[in-house]
Formats: sequence, structure tokens, C-alpha cells
Amino acid sequence: TWDGSATVLNGKLDWVYWEELGHRHGWRAFEWSPDGTQIAYLQLDQSAVPEVPLVDPMETHPKLRMQRYPKSGDPNASASVHLVRLGPGSRGTVSAELPAAGGYLAPALSWSRDSRSAAFTWLSRSQRELELRTLSLEADQCRTLLREQDPHWLNHLGPAWFLPDGGFLWLSERTGFAHLYRCGPDGTFQRALTHGAWQVEEVHGIYDGYAYFTGTGVDARERHLYRVAVEGGDLQPLTRLAGVHATRWQQEGGWSIVSAGQSDEPASELLLAPDGEEKAVLREPDAGWREYDWCRSLYLDVTVEPDTVLHGRMLVPTDFDREQRYPVLVHVYGGPHAQTVRKNWSGGDPLDQLLVQAGILVWKLDNRGSWGRGHAFEAAVDRRLGQVDLDDQLAGVRFIKTLPYVDPEHIGITGWSYGGYMTLQALIRAPGGWTCGVAGAPVVDWKLYDSIYTERYMGTPEDNPEGYEAGSPLRAAASLEAPLLLIHGTDDDNVHVQNTLQFVEALSRHRKPYELLIQPKQKHGFKGKEARTYLHERMLSFFTRHLLNPK
Amino acid sequence: TWDGSATVLNGKLDWVYWEELGHRHGWRAFEWSPDGTQIAYLQLDQSAVPEVPLVDPMETHPKLRMQRYPKSGDPNASASVHLVRLGPGSRGTVSAELPAAGGYLAPALSWSRDSRSAAFTWLSRSQRELELRTLSLEADQCRTLLREQDPHWLNHLGPAWFLPDGGFLWLSERTGFAHLYRCGPDGTFQRALTHGAWQVEEVHGIYDGYAYFTGTGVDARERHLYRVAVEGGDLQPLTRLAGVHATRWQQEGGWSIVSAGQSDEPASELLLAPDGEEKAVLREPDAGWREYDWCRSLYLDVTVEPDTVLHGRMLVPTDFDREQRYPVLVHVYGGPHAQTVRKNWSGGDPLDQLLVQAGILVWKLDNRGSWGRGHAFEAAVDRRLGQVDLDDQLAGVRFIKTLPYVDPEHIGITGWSYGGYMTLQALIRAPGGWTCGVAGAPVVDWKLYDSIYTERYMGTPEDNPEGYEAGSPLRAAASLEAPLLLIHGTDDDNVHVQNTLQFVEALSRHRKPYELLIQPKQKHGFKGKEARTYLHERMLSFFTRHLLNPK
Repeated sequence: TWDGSATVLNGKLDWVYWEELGHRHGWRAFEWSPDGTQIAYLQLDQSAVPEVPLVDPMETHPKLRMQRYPKSGDPNASASVHLVRLGPGSRGTVSAELPAAGGYLAPALSWSRDSRSAAFTWLSRSQRELELRTLSLEADQCRTLLREQDPHWLNHLGPAWFLPDGGFLWLSERTGFAHLYRCGPDGTFQRALTHGAWQVEEVHGIYDGYAYFTGTGVDARERHLYRVAVEGGDLQPLTRLAGVHATRWQQEGGWSIVSAGQSDEPASELLLAPDGEEKAVLREPDAGWREYDWCRSLYLDVTVEPDTVLHGRMLVPTDFDREQRYPVLVHVYGGPHAQTVRKNWSGGDPLDQLLVQAGILVWKLDNRGSWGRGHAFEAAVDRRLGQVDLDDQLAGVRFIKTLPYVDPEHIGITGWSYGGYMTLQALIRAPGGWTCGVAGAPVVDWKLYDSIYTERYMGTPEDNPEGYEAGSPLRAAASLEAPLLLIHGTDDDNVHVQNTLQFVEALSRHRKPYELLIQPKQKHGFKGKEARTYLHERMLSFFTRHLLNPK
Repeated sequence: TWDGSATVLNGKLDWVYWEELGHRHGWRAFEWSPDGTQIAYLQLDQSAVPEVPLVDPMETHPKLRMQRYPKSGDPNASASVHLVRLGPGSRGTVSAELPAAGGYLAPALSWSRDSRSAAFTWLSRSQRELELRTLSLEADQCRTLLREQDPHWLNHLGPAWFLPDGGFLWLSERTGFAHLYRCGPDGTFQRALTHGAWQVEEVHGIYDGYAYFTGTGVDARERHLYRVAVEGGDLQPLTRLAGVHATRWQQEGGWSIVSAGQSDEPASELLLAPDGEEKAVLREPDAGWREYDWCRSLYLDVTVEPDTVLHGRMLVPTDFDREQRYPVLVHVYGGPHAQTVRKNWSGGDPLDQLLVQAGILVWKLDNRGSWGRGHAFEAAVDRRLGQVDLDDQLAGVRFIKTLPYVDPEHIGITGWSYGGYMTLQALIRAPGGWTCGVAGAPVVDWKLYDSIYTERYMGTPEDNPEGYEAGSPLRAAASLEAPLLLIHGTDDDNVHVQNTLQFVEALSRHRKPYELLIQPKQKHGFKGKEARTYLHERMLSFFTRHLLNPK
């Protein structure tokens, strides 16, 4: 390409595409044709996108970086798909006509097996309409293979996986759960390859007539590797433990490296043949892991409204005594498209371990809106972030307060990112009853967050003023009662530190005290042993002070 | 002028000139000739000065402002003086040749009585050499009237005050105290008009053969209005109270409006005739002031080294009981060219009043380096900011700990700006013995502060590495022991918030906890009732928690 610039990106995603549509593919936004003669790539023109200044204060002369970042309702990058044929004299490209302006082009591109056309997904700006389209240099044309629509939103579930006959596999939530479909060359749905009240999560690839993919089990807290014949047949689970399996799949030979874990020990890594036969244990947990007092998990369900069961997990110490009363810290995420309660080892979060070892139980609950339970469960939060999800978390708190081993007078809450947002919403929209809270890198008002994520769930500030109002801890900051520690990195290019600064400004206007940890050089997730150790020490100290001291 | 631009300022100061050389004159950098035919003005070309980004986080799209700000050792604005004659066809200017590059031109310009030449002051970059020069359109020449030099630094004490014979009055610290001299038209010193171990502080003007000025009394904690005949004669004090008088003087008629105050009541405003006769009381304290329990002042001297007496002031409550033991808060400024212990009313600082009413005594001490005691006293801190001044403050603390009514186990420290710096230096360079501290808008390392101020007292980082090292709380942050609250405004264009951010980053590396109050929209001094009330509440709450609780 020859037309790239500071604002025009060829084959590379910008920040918001990378964060909200590209998470499995990194910054890459191009795909070679199978025969190696063409490249399909995305072009993003960011020139209309507003810039956010990010300042690094650590130099004597603070460094300024301008980040193109569309906030909710802002102009987005203008996207197009291009094909280029390689070889002498072949610089010409063809680009896709789009159904309507302002939409998105998903970065996951794929090619037909015969290299004659590339497929891409167009999403309308509302993300309620989607089209799978193909583009071909030969025909110099753009063709629509299929359309989907949804009254809430369409999750972007990956590319089309093409088959030798020109047909393809396609992942869709059209039944309410993400399942795999075999489509014909013209895009017609020929056959559902999977079905039921569970979901396919990620297609790894096709080998020897089988599609390999990861899905939830019937238990949404598990993840398994499956295969199914692309022309239809029985679903074949290839993993066996009642837990979470994470797979790296190899296109050559159809082998899998699977990280297999359950609740109470670290995962092992297994090598599986294409038929699922375990060929080797590649890695076992480090020998020393048993020397530490890792916490145990109690899986507890909470029923809300007539029929909805929410999954919870209580982390308790090794010497857990049901006759004692423990303070509890609600460790929340709560945002759509994520899941925190899984049947996996709890040791991945050192803060949880520290808290439990200090005598504080840690409670996690996946509210409506979370991932893995189907589209209706997720879309329950549509236009109402910070309301439905908060109601469920509050139901969870009412539930745990009835447990004989919980001290109902010492309940704290914490979370990071959306979890920081939920922490603030909880402290502010349901004051009283909280002993304290720690909000890390929180969104404080949805108008400050990015277009693709925020509009998917909330629409624009103009479309949904009530939702933005009710979902904003910033606008109700006056209601804060409990002691609060706020944490933010100054270099956060995802949830800008602006969020926390606007929040403390509001707290000062309402004469509310707060504690604040501002970390220069850190982005949205704090990295490095030094910074993380400090973070955890500060949080542990805060919770110890408030939750372990008698009132 | 026609050549002004974003980087070239005509007749207007840039930030660092305004802050460090222009404080009595605002942003103005021009002067009309007495006959109204010419203007003398300063031109500053800032193009080589580095820019500091300042971000306002309160908008959805954070606003960026780039501030030209030379940090210590950085390129400064290039300065020149120009004259322009008004009237038809007279656009030509003449500009001054300067003795050496890199120096400063003081913004206080003055004209000879016959309007034939304008005088300006050149200071070398080291501020150890000064020249008073004149510039004339007629002669198209620049002439040097006098030179001064000092092994430490020369304070910029204002313009030359011209007399009808072409001679002028000049304020100089050449004897060690600032006194007024009568100079001849050629710049020779003809006569000292004042002398002794006290100092002239500000010349108001000349009327009817007398120079009017404010100076300290023999007691450096007082300020008086004086006059002296410009051809020599007795010094005539025009104010009488044993306290601080602040004068607005009128050139027409030689009248003065004087704010006259003492320690224990608010100042009254008096109208004085040229001979000092009191003609009217223009304003008395608001009637209601006596209804509040304003604190009382104890003036206490502390002797350091063989012969140096430092002035201190202890604020105590109305119902002060010498049999009790009170916690004490050291309220420090400590920087050169400033004085905190004066014989004026203490009611101007509401925080002091709140603290004393809460049962915490407030202690202020003017260390060496402070203003009003002559040049040797001030210049004792030369190249050693944060060392000599800190030693004196520590001597003050040792002294107050011997007072029977002081609880030596509960001593806190606080200050703003240089006082925030001193607070950090005290907590870090002399750990142990402090119960807690609050540092507002502190400089944390002199390499982060502006060129004109910092180099005057410290030289450049290159010249004085030992001084910068020993004077930096940042570089020794690991030594912090006492609980610390840091406060900074994000829009501070004087001491950039970078200072506090670098400091908390260092604290996090050394695993030291801190409290932090970051105030968006606020500059170096917090303004507005809301922000100041919150600030004082947070500080009062912090000190109450630490100083009033038994250990």
C-alpha cells in the first residue's frame, strides 16, 4: 500500500477496533489468500476521530501523546476493505462498497478456498445489523452472503470458515445461543451443526472434515474442546475434566495443546491428537504449589426473579470454619461479554489469595449481562448498564448476608475497569450496607467511554439519555457514603484517567472524602511486579483497615 | 508593533517573567514616556522555550494547553527592549544591544523626566551581575549607567526613579540591606538616603521632593510607610502602629491609603496626607469579627548558630492553658524572598483558625533564606535550598518541643508550594519525630521548577549537582516514615502536577503508602469557596485524625 499516513492505517487496527472488535487477532487487519497471490486488508481513516491527550509526567519535560479515540457518539474511523494482487504490474486494488455509512468492518477476514474471493463482516453502527460480504478482484464486485439482525445487539463472533465446495461455517446466536452452522456457497443456512442451551465460543479451525471449537459445557462455568463433522454428525467432546479447558489448536495435523484446569489445582497442559486421545502431559503444576494455603471455592447459586439462576463462587480459607463469621469482599466485574465464575483454579489472582489468607472471604457472582449463558441472559442489560447488573449483584449480597458464616456488617466491594464502575455504582446507587470499596480504573460515565463498546450496549448519549443518567456514578456522586479508594494509571488509554479525575472533582464539590492512588506510567492493567505488589499491598491494607476492624 | 506572534510577545510578559520578575507589575511590559510620544517595551521571543502540556480533564474531550515553561537549565525566552515613537511616519524602533546572551531584561522600565531615554535593567542568567542601561531613539544608542554584582544573587528591586536633573533614585542591597541611593545622571552613587540594619522594600514614588517608600522597621516583622527628601535628610516614618502597613500611594497629591494592622485584630484602612497626617479612617474591621474565637499569637525567638535569631510565631487558642500539652502543626513556607512571621492579624488564614480551634497549636518560623532580614540572612541558603532552611526549621521544632505546653509526641508539618517542598524535605531528610505531614503543590526536585527562580538560588542542575541531590525529596523518597497527604491541582502551571505524580511514583516503588488529593481545574493556589472549603476540611480531618488521637 502507498496511501498510509498518520491517520490512514492499512492492514492494522486502530485502538478502538483492536480493543472492541479485534481482541483475538491483535493489531492485524489483513489476510493472505490461500494461494498466496492476494492480500485482503482493512483500511481505517481516523482523520475525523477526536484526539485525547495522554501525558507522561515522568520526564523532566512531560511527554505528550495524542490518541485517536472515539467516545460514545463521536465520529468513528471510516473503514473499507481492499484486495491487492501481488506480482509484476499488479498494484491495483478493489475496495468494498458498504451498505451504509458509519458502520464497522470486522477485522476478521477470510478467503474462499479457491482464493477467488475474500469475506468480511459489516456491522451497522448500532450493531443490530450485520452482513457477511465477499469481495473479488476478478469480478470487481461485492456480494452479500448473509444478513443477521438482533433487537439488542449482535456479537461479532469471528469470520466465515470456508469449505471446499464454496460453502462455509458460520457462528450465530440466532437461536439465543451461539451455535455453528453449515452454509451453502450462496449463504443459505443448510444445517445447524450444534444446538441446545449451551454455546460455542470459538472456532479453532477445520481439519479432516471436522470443525474444532471451544464451547461451554452444559455447565456454563466449564469450557471444553469439541469437534463435529462439517457435514453433520454427533458432537464429540475431546476434553474430560469437569472444568475449564483452554486450547491452542494446530492447523497442521489437527493437534491441540490444552490447558486443563479445575477449581482446586493449577491447570496441566496436555497434548491431544485430532480424535482427542491424550498423547502427552506437556506440563504439570510447579511442584511447590501445594506448600501454600490456596483458598478453596464454594460454588453457590443465587436465584433472582422467577427463574433466573446466577452462579456465584465464594473463596474461603483452608481452615474455613463455618461457625465463625467472616467479613466478605465482593470482587465484581459485571460487564457484558465476560464471565468471572468458572470452574478453574482460583490461584491466578494473588489479591484474592491475600485477602482470603487475611481472613476476608471473596465473593464473585456473574450477574445478567455476563457471558456464557446465552444471548437473552446477556442482553438483559441492554440500554441499562449499571442497573440490571447492579440489581443482581445486590441480590447476591442479600443472599450472602443470610449465610451463617458471613458477617453482614462487614461487606466491601472492589473491581477493576467495568468492575471499578460497578463498585462505584454499588456504593452510590445503593448506599448503606457497604463497609468500604476500592474502584480500579473505573468508567464513571458512559459518555467518556469508547464508541464501539458503549453504543453496542447503551446506544449514544443522545439516543438513551435516561440510561446514561441512571448508569452514571459520576452524576450521583453526592450519594457516596462508604470509605472509597480510587485507583487509576495516568497512561490508561482505554478508560482514561479523566474518569477518576472527574469523579474526585465531583466528590470535592459534594464534600466527600476519598483515598486516591494514581500510578504514572501504568495503563489500564497495571503491569510489572513492583507496581502490582504495591497495588495489592495498598488494597490489602485498605480492606484490612475497614473490614477486619470491629465497627 | 507588527511582529508579535504565538511565540513573540511585545509589551507583555510570558509566564516565567510574570512569575519571577514581574510580580508587582502584572503582565505589563511597557512604559509610556512622560511626554506621551514614545513607548518603551520588552519583547520576548519564546520560540526556543520547551512546552509543557496541561490537560483539562473535565470536558468529555479533554482540553490540551501547551505552556511555554523553561525548567532549570532550559533555553529561556530571548529578550530585547524596544522604543517606538508615535505619530505620522514614526514606525521605526530602536532596540538595545545586550552585554551577553542568555540574560534577562527586567520588566520594570522607566523614563527620564525629559522623555529622551528609557532605562531598563539587564540581569545575567546567573543573576550575579546586573546593569542599569538607558536607550534613546535620538541617540540610537544604549548606555550603561551602573553595574552591580553579588557573589550569591541580585534581587531585582525595581526600576530607576528619575529626577529632574537627570539623576535617579536606585534601590540596592550593596551594603547587605536594601537601601535607597541618590545617583547622578552618569550613574555615580552620590548619597545613601537610608541606611542601617533594616531594609527598604518598595519605592512608591516621588512627590514634592520626597521619596515615599515602604520598609521594615527596626523590627523586621513590621512594615512602615516612610518618606525621605531626595536630596538627603532625616528619615520620616509616616505610620505609627507597631505592626504591618500596606500602602497604596497616589502620585497625584502624594496621598496614601494605608492598611494598618497588628497581631490581634484585623487591619483598618487610613487616609494619610503627604506629611503622614491621618485625615480619615476609610474602613474599620467588620463589626462582627469579635464574635469569633480568633487565635492569639505568641512571638517566640529561636537562636541558631552563634548569633542568628529566628522569629517564630505560635498561634494559640483564646482559652489557651499553659498547663495543658497541645499537639503542634508546623505551618512552613521557608522559601527565599518571603516572610511568614509578621506583626499582622492572623485571621487571614482560615485553616490556621480551624486548627487552633480544634486544639492544635500552629507554629510558624522564618528560617534563614527568608525575606526582611537583609541579604546575608537571605543568601545563607545559596545553592543549598532544602538544607540550611530545613536545619533552621528543625531547630525550631527542637525549641518548641522544650515548651511545657507542647506535646512533643504530636508534631505535624504542612505547607504549600515551597512550603509543600519543605514539608517533604522535613519528612524525608529528617524522618522520625513527625506525626504526619500535608504537602500542597510541592516542588519535589528543583530540576522540575522554572529557570529564573531555581537558577537564582541553586544554579543549573549541571552547575550544582550536589545541591540538587541534597535538595530533592524525590530522590530520597524511600525515607518517608510519617503518614503523608499530598495535594495538587491538575491545572497548576507554576509547580506542575508532574511533581506530585513523580513523587507518588517513587513512593510506590518504595512501597510507601500515601494519601492524595488531586483537584482538577485548580491552579497553584486553589480558588473558590467550594474548593477551599473542601481543601480545609480534608486537611483538618487529616490533622485531627493524626494529631488529636493518642498514639
